[in-house]
Amino acid sequence: MAQLRKVILPQLPKTPSGISGLDEITQGGLPKGRPTLICGEAGSGKTLFSIEFIVRGALNYNEPGVFVAFEEKADELATNVASLGFDLKKLIDTKKLRVDYIHIERAEIEETGEYNLEGLFIRLDYAIKSIGAKRIVLDTIENLFSGLSNKAILRAELRRLFQWLKDKGVTAIITGEKGDGHLTREGLEEYVSDCVILLDHRVNNQISTRRLRIIKYRGSFHGTNEYPFLIDEEGISVLPVTSLK
Amino acid sequence: MAQLRKVILPQLPKTPSGISGLDEITQGGLPKGRPTLICGEAGSGKTLFSIEFIVRGALNYNEPGVFVAFEEKADELATNVASLGFDLKKLIDTKKLRVDYIHIERAEIEETGEYNLEGLFIRLDYAIKSIGAKRIVLDTIENLFSGLSNKAILRAELRRLFQWLKDKGVTAIITGEKGDGHLTREGLEEYVSDCVILLDHRVNNQISTRRLRIIKYRGSFHGTNEYPFLIDEEGISVLPVTSLK
Amino acid sequence: MAQLRKVILPQLPKTPSGISGLDEITQGGLPKGRPTLICGEAGSGKTLFSIEFIVRGALNYNEPGVFVAFEEKADELATNVASLGFDLKKLIDTKKLRVDYIHIERAEIEETGEYNLEGLFIRLDYAIKSIGAKRIVLDTIENLFSGLSNKAILRAELRRLFQWLKDKGVTAIITGEKGDGHLTREGLEEYVSDCVILLDHRVNNQISTRRLRIIKYRGSFHGTNEYPFLIDEEGISVLPVTSLK
Amino acid sequence: MAQLRKVILPQLPKTPSGISGLDEITQGGLPKGRPTLICGEAGSGKTLFSIEFIVRGALNYNEPGVFVAFEEKADELATNVASLGFDLKKLIDTKKLRVDYIHIERAEIEETGEYNLEGLFIRLDYAIKSIGAKRIVLDTIENLFSGLSNKAILRAELRRLFQWLKDKGVTAIITGEKGDGHLTREGLEEYVSDCVILLDHRVNNQISTRRLRIIKYRGSFHGTNEYPFLIDEEGISVLPVTSLK
Amino acid sequence: MAQLRKVILPQLPKTPSGISGLDEITQGGLPKGRPTLICGEAGSGKTLFSIEFIVRGALNYNEPGVFVAFEEKADELATNVASLGFDLKKLIDTKKLRVDYIHIERAEIEETGEYNLEGLFIRLDYAIKSIGAKRIVLDTIENLFSGLSNKAILRAELRRLFQWLKDKGVTAIITGEKGDGHLTREGLEEYVSDCVILLDHRVNNQISTRRLRIIKYRGSFHGTNEYPFLIDEEGISVLPVTSLK
Amino acid sequence: MAQLRKVILPQLPKTPSGISGLDEITQGGLPKGRPTLICGEAGSGKTLFSIEFIVRGALNYNEPGVFVAFEEKADELATNVASLGFDLKKLIDTKKLRVDYIHIERAEIEETGEYNLEGLFIRLDYAIKSIGAKRIVLDTIENLFSGLSNKAILRAELRRLFQWLKDKGVTAIITGEKGDGHLTREGLEEYVSDCVILLDHRVNNQISTRRLRIIKYRGSFHGTNEYPFLIDEEGISVLPVTSLK
Ligand SMILES: Nc1ncnc2c1ncn2[C@@H]1O[C@H](COP(=O)(O)OP(=O)(O)O)[C@@H](O)[C@H]1O
Ligand SMILES: Nc1ncnc2c1ncn2[C@@H]1O[C@H](COP(=O)(O)OP(=O)(O)O)[C@@H](O)[C@H]1O
Ligand SMILES: Nc1ncnc2c1ncn2[C@@H]1O[C@H](COP(=O)(O)OP(=O)(O)O)[C@@H](O)[C@H]1O
Ligand SMILES: Nc1ncnc2c1ncn2[C@@H]1O[C@H](COP(=O)(O)OP(=O)(O)O)[C@@H](O)[C@H]1O
Ligand SMILES: Nc1ncnc2c1ncn2[C@@H]1O[C@H](COP(=O)(O)OP(=O)(O)O)[C@@H](O)[C@H]1O
Ligand SMILES: Nc1ncnc2c1ncn2[C@@H]1O[C@H](COP(=O)(O)OP(=O)(O)O)[C@@H](O)[C@H]1O
Ligand SMILES: [Mg+2]
Ligand SMILES: [Mg+2]
Ligand SMILES: [Mg+2]
Ligand SMILES: [Mg+2]
Ligand SMILES: [Mg+2]
Ligand SMILES: [Mg+2]
Repeated sequence: MAQLRKVILPQLPKTPSGISGLDEITQGGLPKGRPTLICGEAGSGKTLFSIEFIVRGALNYNEPGVFVAFEEKADELATNVASLGFDLKKLIDTKKLRVDYIHIERAEIEETGEYNLEGLFIRLDYAIKSIGAKRIVLDTIENLFSGLSNKAILRAELRRLFQWLKDKGVTAIITGEKGDGHLTREGLEEYVSDCVILLDHRVNNQISTRRLRIIKYRGSFHGTNEYPFLIDEEGISVLPVTSLK
Repeated sequence: MAQLRKVILPQLPKTPSGISGLDEITQGGLPKGRPTLICGEAGSGKTLFSIEFIVRGALNYNEPGVFVAFEEKADELATNVASLGFDLKKLIDTKKLRVDYIHIERAEIEETGEYNLEGLFIRLDYAIKSIGAKRIVLDTIENLFSGLSNKAILRAELRRLFQWLKDKGVTAIITGEKGDGHLTREGLEEYVSDCVILLDHRVNNQISTRRLRIIKYRGSFHGTNEYPFLIDEEGISVLPVTSLK
Repeated sequence: MAQLRKVILPQLPKTPSGISGLDEITQGGLPKGRPTLICGEAGSGKTLFSIEFIVRGALNYNEPGVFVAFEEKADELATNVASLGFDLKKLIDTKKLRVDYIHIERAEIEETGEYNLEGLFIRLDYAIKSIGAKRIVLDTIENLFSGLSNKAILRAELRRLFQWLKDKGVTAIITGEKGDGHLTREGLEEYVSDCVILLDHRVNNQISTRRLRIIKYRGSFHGTNEYPFLIDEEGISVLPVTSLK
Repeated sequence: MAQLRKVILPQLPKTPSGISGLDEITQGGLPKGRPTLICGEAGSGKTLFSIEFIVRGALNYNEPGVFVAFEEKADELATNVASLGFDLKKLIDTKKLRVDYIHIERAEIEETGEYNLEGLFIRLDYAIKSIGAKRIVLDTIENLFSGLSNKAILRAELRRLFQWLKDKGVTAIITGEKGDGHLTREGLEEYVSDCVILLDHRVNNQISTRRLRIIKYRGSFHGTNEYPFLIDEEGISVLPVTSLK
Repeated sequence: MAQLRKVILPQLPKTPSGISGLDEITQGGLPKGRPTLICGEAGSGKTLFSIEFIVRGALNYNEPGVFVAFEEKADELATNVASLGFDLKKLIDTKKLRVDYIHIERAEIEETGEYNLEGLFIRLDYAIKSIGAKRIVLDTIENLFSGLSNKAILRAELRRLFQWLKDKGVTAIITGEKGDGHLTREGLEEYVSDCVILLDHRVNNQISTRRLRIIKYRGSFHGTNEYPFLIDEEGISVLPVTSLK
Repeated sequence: MAQLRKVILPQLPKTPSGISGLDEITQGGLPKGRPTLICGEAGSGKTLFSIEFIVRGALNYNEPGVFVAFEEKADELATNVASLGFDLKKLIDTKKLRVDYIHIERAEIEETGEYNLEGLFIRLDYAIKSIGAKRIVLDTIENLFSGLSNKAILRAELRRLFQWLKDKGVTAIITGEKGDGHLTREGLEEYVSDCVILLDHRVNNQISTRRLRIIKYRGSFHGTNEYPFLIDEEGISVLPVTSLK
């Protein structure tokens, strides 16, 4: 084995999230050019985590980013993060950010029973190119796939979306809603993803605590415990309280 | 980061609920012009919470309100809250309140399999305009959507209702029935909502306690723990026993 | 707020149940002219509670009552409560009680897939008028609705039944079978009802205890804890062991 | 109330089971002329309980009995209880017992999707008359109804069977298999029955104990706790360890 | 009662399993000429238990046996038990054992939606006669019936199989896979069987223990607790640690 | 029994996994020429375990291996394990490894409703022959079978795949996703497999630990407890902390 380890082999490239504490736990950030799944219950901080990833990228690392929102309109999103010191409007004006609000009409689903992925790709492609985006967020994935009932087809479609994102070379975050006894609603997304982070907001004896856990990170060491995190005036701060395993 | 925080950015506008203790925990009330979801089991206090929100608005903040009731008729509602000192009749007479009892007939559902949202919008619109309402309550959402089985369509319809309310500029409360292991029956409403409050009425060693928790509040800090609350002669009083995290 | 409370507002009218201890916990009895849902598992005491409500009404408050039985025939019912000192025959003879045993045939359900509510209303109407009933019991509701699978239609039908009873001005008890993780089989009845009481018969360390809890009482204060109750020679006695919250 | 209790009212007639300890807990036995449901998991003792009820009736109380077996043939049954000192053959020869093994063929179910109850009634009627039976056992009910999926129809059919048995004036035992979180597979039988007894065979720290509980007994006081019972050379012995509540 | 017990009645005939410790707990072995159900999770020891029953029968009691394997081929089976000192080949050569590997093709199920029981009977009959078998094993039953969805038909088919085996007069073991909250996948097999033994392999604080429990044994006393067992060089050894209750 | 054990019988042939600690617990490795099922949740280490099995085989035991990946492309896989000192490229160049990425298109499933196994066999056959593979991995099985809903057909197909692999004489690993209360999604794979290993990554008091358990190993003794394992710069190291059972 000894001679094997002498050779200097390429390490997995990473993109710093810019989120305080997280890049320490992940030893450098999220997998570069790959999609990461952020899952958690309503209010666990998925959207905030994603937006901070985009904002920090634009401000600290000069990486423009696209935020594809299915739940909140661009101006609502801007209002929602203003108190954290994130000035989305300014970022949009300086072409560092593009917020794309996709409103899925009932009719779009009723016709074919599902959302048209090809149309989404065209739209994403345009958004990415328009600002030369290096980062992208899709918040949340359930909006795309909740019309699909066949698990095998859902799996194929998930992989198609993930592959498309990889082919674009962008570092992506996809958010997902927590399911019953699964990380996600369908319990498939976590298997297909390269990196999975779970956000948690449990109540214990009437006191709530926010916690983050790296469930899975293909190709990299990382802290594996549950780390408490705070949401304060500067966004999210993860406390890497336990030393790296 | 420092220069970022110097800029004075707009804060999320809020509407004081007027409910004792709650505006302290939420740092100012419910999100202004947006819908808030109040969920809980039968008897947890959803209707009382909603009606107090409307009554306090009318009396303390001069904001007329519409209460759309699917469960209780206008006079029943008035009787039910009389002992809390809420005089609905007087508020109705002075055009500060409008109670709209919507009785969904079986036939309405059987024809199309679901309740017609367009018809509801016309009715809500009329009600809002008739008194210049700034607040509105829909009690409870299950009456509208329990005929829809396709999750993707339900999500689209929920968003359509929420968007319609936002477009009207009213601060809304929508109540929802608790589901199995979810906050709501379908487990979707909490993801689509901007603000979610859970009312709870647990029994422990034969003693029951009422508790309230802000599950989610897009765009704002808030107390995150479980706060005990009382229903007494003056309505609901939430005890912000733990300091704001 | 002060001037608000000075006005003397109407209180919710109540009908004393006559059940020992219960009228203390409910501050006067069940909601007058409205239906109350009594739910619990097999053997929890639903039928006994209901029959005592009717018998006490007839004897102590001079309110004739109708008992609609789907499970037990009139003479069986009489036999079943004889040892509690309830003489149903005498009450029937003196026109203070009418027991209506409704036997639902398989054919009635198979034809339309559900029980015909209109037919029930005619029958109930006749029964109520025949003795000038002020109280009525339907034991148990599952017999009427277990053929309905669409939740939206079930909700509409439940409301139709409840409304019909309210229109008649009778104080009603409807019993319901306990469901999985719900108070009732469908988990809908408790949301539609104005008053919900849960009867419980738990075993702990091989010892069983009967307990009663007011889950919900629209328009009224009430004890909210779990109260032990006994079934003895005089019927049900609830022990209001904890003071009114 | 006082004058009410002075009148001597008829008590619920009972049939002694002859099972050691049980008639003490039930204050006299099972409800005479009515069906009792005995439920429990595989091996909990349902069949043994039922057969002892029949054997004791024939030997101690001179009441001939019919045992309708769907699971075991007459000779198998005889073999199975021989070591408990029950000589079924002798009882059959002396016309005190009739064992009717009903073998339900697949074809019988496939044709109509369910078992034909009318045919069963003719067969039971004949069996009862042939020995002038006062007791009857149906072991187990799932054999009759597991083809029925509509809950409303199942309820109607259950009631039809129970009513038929009552009309015959026999004291009946019907056994039922334990369901998930219900006393029986469908969770309906326990609501329709007049008397329900649960047999339990739990393992705690590798040690198993048999326990019996009267879940429900319409029209009668009874011990309500869980009572340990033994199966020994003389059959079942219930230990009424806690005094009657 | 006294005179009843004086008569010497036939006891249930038993077949010694030859498995160390088990014949002590069962007071003589498995029910002779009847099928016994052995259930447990994957790896709990069902196949080993069954094969040892056959091997001990052939070697110690001169009873030839048929092993019908749906999961493992004859030579695989031989390899799997070789290290336990069981020489299947030698037993086969001396006509003391016949291993019948039944390979169910997809096509066989797709045509009729289920496996053809008649064909199986012909095959079993031939196998039994060819060596004059007194013992038989079917490992595992799910292979036969997992295509049947109607519970009433499944019950009828299970009984048909069990009856066929009884008619052949062989002492049989049928293995079954553990289901959710049931002993078997469908939760039916344990009710239809005369004898049910559960094998368990629980982990507690990272340490696993194998345990065996006689769930049910029609017609016989037996130890009712959970007994630890080992798999070592001589096969299975059950430790009858607690005295017979 | 004594004379039986004297004969030297063939032992189950094994293939050393080369994974540190595992071959000690399994007394020599995985069953040679048979498929082993590795199951666990997302991020539990299934892919890493499988790839190390292939890499160690090629390097330490001179056994070429095929890795069939449904989730990760060949170059992604190479990148993912580079930091563990595994140089996949070099192994591929020297014909010691072949990575076959199978991308299942939606269309392939939609046509027949399932993935075509025959096509897979041709592809696997070619891959095995091209490098004279002795080891093979299929990561993960859900990609092949999640379109099959009939359990009987799924079982037949699983067995067909397993049999095909056995016929090829390769030592195989098949990975499977954890299901609700089952080892695998369908809860069938563990019954059909000869060897089943569960990887676990539980969180306890915010601290996570990786553990491995041999659920089942047909034909062999093995450690049966839960063994902690680490993922470090040299791959997986299992700690055989408790002595062999
Ligand atoms: N190259 C690596 N270096 C260190 N740890 C790794 C590496 N690759 C994977 N891991 C660790 O192993 C875990 C499991 O990876 P993987 O085998 O892909 O899981 P699975 O296939 O069960 O989903 C990852 O979440 C990570 O913690
Ligand atoms: N602007 C803000 N200031 C402070 N806290 C915020 C702000 N926005 C959101 N939060 C907090 O973060 C929580 C999670 O928000 P969000 O990211 O929208 O959750 P998710 O997308 O997981 O539903 C909110 O419930 C709130 O507690
Ligand atoms: N007028 C009142 N006075 C005092 N308590 C009341 C009054 N109305 C309701 N309550 C209390 O509030 C509880 C909740 O009522 P409600 O708001 O109708 O619940 P929900 O809408 O969640 O079903 C009731 O069960 C009762 O305990
Ligand atoms: N006449 C009686 N005397 C004493 N106890 C009775 C009498 N009738 C019923 N009970 C007790 O009350 C319990 C509940 O009876 P019932 O009201 O029929 O329950 P439910 O309708 O909830 O199924 C019975 O199981 C029994 O313990
Ligand atoms: N003849 C007997 N002698 C001693 N114990 C017996 C006898 N028959 C049955 N048992 C015991 O009683 C248990 C329950 O038997 P049974 O009444 O057939 O259960 P059930 O019908 O509930 O499945 C058996 O598992 C066994 O422990
Ligand atoms: N030849 C053997 N030597 C030692 N132990 C064995 C042998 N065969 C099986 N075992 C042990 O017995 C366990 C159960 O095997 P098996 O009877 O095949 O289980 P099941 O049929 O319940 O799935 C195996 O997981 C292994 O631990
Ligand atoms: Mg969000
Ligand atoms: Mg309400
Ligand atoms: Mg009742
Ligand atoms: Mg039985
Ligand atoms: Mg096996
Ligand atoms: Mg993997």
